[in-house]
Amino acid sequence: MMEHHFKCTNCSRIFAAGTTEREHIYICPDCGESIKNSPLKGVLTVEYDYEKLKKTYTKDKFLHLTAGQIWTYPDLWPMEFSKIDKYDLEKLALPPNQILKYKIDGRELYLQDETRNPTYSYKDRASILVALKAKELGINEIAAASTGNAGSSLAGICARLGITSHIFVPKNIPEAKRIQIQSYGGNIYLVDGDYDQAFDLCLEISKKNNWYNRNTAYNPLTIEGKKSAAFDIYINTKGEIPDYIFVPVGDGVIISGLYKGFLELKKLQIIEKLPRLIAVQAGGSSAVVDYLSTGIFEYKPPNTIADSISAGAPRNLYMAAKAVKESKGYEVKATDDEILSAQKELAHKTGLLVEPSCASTFAAYKKEKSKFEGNKKIMLLLTGSGLKDFASLKQWNYKPKIKSDIEWINILIKEN
Amino acid sequence: MMEHHFKCTNCSRIFAAGTTEREHIYICPDCGESIKNSPLKGVLTVEYDYEKLKKTYTKDKFLHLTAGQIWTYPDLWPMEFSKIDKYDLEKLALPPNQILKYKIDGRELYLQDETRNPTYSYKDRASILVALKAKELGINEIAAASTGNAGSSLAGICARLGITSHIFVPKNIPEAKRIQIQSYGGNIYLVDGDYDQAFDLCLEISKKNNWYNRNTAYNPLTIEGKKSAAFDIYINTKGEIPDYIFVPVGDGVIISGLYKGFLELKKLQIIEKLPRLIAVQAGGSSAVVDYLSTGIFEYKPPNTIADSISAGAPRNLYMAAKAVKESKGYEVKATDDEILSAQKELAHKTGLLVEPSCASTFAAYKKEKSKFEGNKKIMLLLTGSGLKDFASLKQWNYKPKIKSDIEWINILIKEN
Repeated sequence: MMEHHFKCTNCSRIFAAGTTEREHIYICPDCGESIKNSPLKGVLTVEYDYEKLKKTYTKDKFLHLTAGQIWTYPDLWPMEFSKIDKYDLEKLALPPNQILKYKIDGRELYLQDETRNPTYSYKDRASILVALKAKELGINEIAAASTGNAGSSLAGICARLGITSHIFVPKNIPEAKRIQIQSYGGNIYLVDGDYDQAFDLCLEISKKNNWYNRNTAYNPLTIEGKKSAAFDIYINTKGEIPDYIFVPVGDGVIISGLYKGFLELKKLQIIEKLPRLIAVQAGGSSAVVDYLSTGIFEYKPPNTIADSISAGAPRNLYMAAKAVKESKGYEVKATDDEILSAQKELAHKTGLLVEPSCASTFAAYKKEKSKFEGNKKIMLLLTGSGLKDFASLKQWNYKPKIKSDIEWINILIKEN
Repeated sequence: MMEHHFKCTNCSRIFAAGTTEREHIYICPDCGESIKNSPLKGVLTVEYDYEKLKKTYTKDKFLHLTAGQIWTYPDLWPMEFSKIDKYDLEKLALPPNQILKYKIDGRELYLQDETRNPTYSYKDRASILVALKAKELGINEIAAASTGNAGSSLAGICARLGITSHIFVPKNIPEAKRIQIQSYGGNIYLVDGDYDQAFDLCLEISKKNNWYNRNTAYNPLTIEGKKSAAFDIYINTKGEIPDYIFVPVGDGVIISGLYKGFLELKKLQIIEKLPRLIAVQAGGSSAVVDYLSTGIFEYKPPNTIADSISAGAPRNLYMAAKAVKESKGYEVKATDDEILSAQKELAHKTGLLVEPSCASTFAAYKKEKSKFEGNKKIMLLLTGSGLKDFASLKQWNYKPKIKSDIEWINILIKEN
């Protein structure tokens, strides 16, 4: 394990790492606390000795890695992978071939397909690192608050490793998401409140029971785990990374992790320029977009069909906003109607069935595409499978009329 | 393209291949016809010049292939891959890392994970070959009859390639399966009848409209496409193939294709011994198992929760039975209760959420496991994702009680 430390993104205080006890640090004790309907302040980030790392982590080394297997380049993670059983690691490999290239309406698009991860979503990248850290620490129970995908991801990854998971969800969780969590054997706790209340209760009970906690952004490894997509994109594009990446944004952890990954590649002098990250949110849940436009955070109860990016108080708002600004990206909103129509068009034109959350990236791209020069490489980040949210598919697939044998034979079929 | 021909599995008549017109051959005109509630006779199989092939297709060559990409060893397919756009091929790659190794109840099990294929099922292996053949032939419309997965697979693969798909389904198709087909943009036709009637109507209308037809077993490439799993298993186990493979059986096409793949490896002198294929069926849909036990086929309306292996008249019964016998395998039935309980146990212990159809293999394994010597390598073929059949997951995941804040704080959590 390479030397590393944790740093508060608010006050810049440094926390040493490397001992079991200290690894339990979640959030800066000076700045961070969980406040109802508020983003978290004092989220920690992991820092490494990049000057030292860049001697061994060269362009050439990176180009020869296999995507989807973070343990093959262990020094870029705050982990002691050597303590983990080889077969446990193999159970967590992502498909290495994740980028699909499609020509849509005359323009090439790169699609980063996270829908075939172990539990069919991007959240697995965070769950994998967190679960392996628990294994390394010898902790066999992990808890998380979730509105859906993070919970089923943690439950599924824990099942692969024989770890017990405890998932705290708001009582109005969509049925499909609840059942996915339970199917993987996660212990589920239906909280009589919203995500905020589930979040706080999960922290309290985790402490009481000495469970390792995976609350999004609260545990810095959730952000750290999500940086792996940047490395995978570098490997899979053979270093020809996109100019622009459309990223669906809810709590702001994916875009923060992705940005950190690219920033590390830059610090290692493997890439020269960062891709510009375009934050996409649903019109009914646009706290990050609004903060970027106005500089003000204001809590509004979220209201969107895209439940995986529905967040009134994005826990990782400040890092997400920074990722957009520092990568010279910008922000876009899409309405629920635009999202559903993009979900349909994407499935029909590419055979990729995605959740509304990330169909938003295609909706946003369609609005913006006239702005891009023809030679720019554009990627959409497709973060979750459409099968995870069956209710949204039902909205645009009506049952056709049943016809009798004779009716069929007597008509030409082309009408459908 | 290597020289090859088609051979009738009933009368052994040979049909030359290689011209566009002849590629349209589906079934032996002497033996084959579609008879209601009956298996197909006269299914064709593809034969190659193995003596010639074995000079270049050596053990060493095979061990260095990438799994999931059939076009990287083109001579074992009745296809002219060079006529297909490279980017179209890349869109069809399966994840190369499909085998997971788990220790369950003290014994190692190999799980072949087909749940992360492009449309989340094994059927993609057939659809890929059929769709590429259509491309090669310059046909842009493909039709198939389906009770679910074959249809959504064809629709999804066609969407990737810009081909129009026409799917004929019985009117009682599960809603989830119907919506998957439609989501990928497949034109769907709800037939006022059962699978048999959809099958016949699909053939008739395909002929009328000059569509390429993917009806299971009727088009020999559906069986041929499914042999690729044998090659992938060889590649992924580095030649150390399993001694036994539990295979879920409905129409009998998967087990026939798998057997053919291993037989070809044997003909090429790459393996010495075939894995023994254990045919698993649901108690309420056991025509192949019963035929193996009694030598008699009798149509019974199928009745099982495992809709992907529900088939009263397995189209490919005779080849399936031959695959079991010639590989020295045998047959096992599992009840719906055993299947659901296996689905649950597998998800909890491995994090793999699979359909009831293939959870049947775990149910069967649990019944049989005392029979196997400890040093035997056992594999389960997991053919479809559990997210494809949400209704089955609902059967064993009840909604827990919602507790208030105060109730939570006052109890210790370990009760769940």
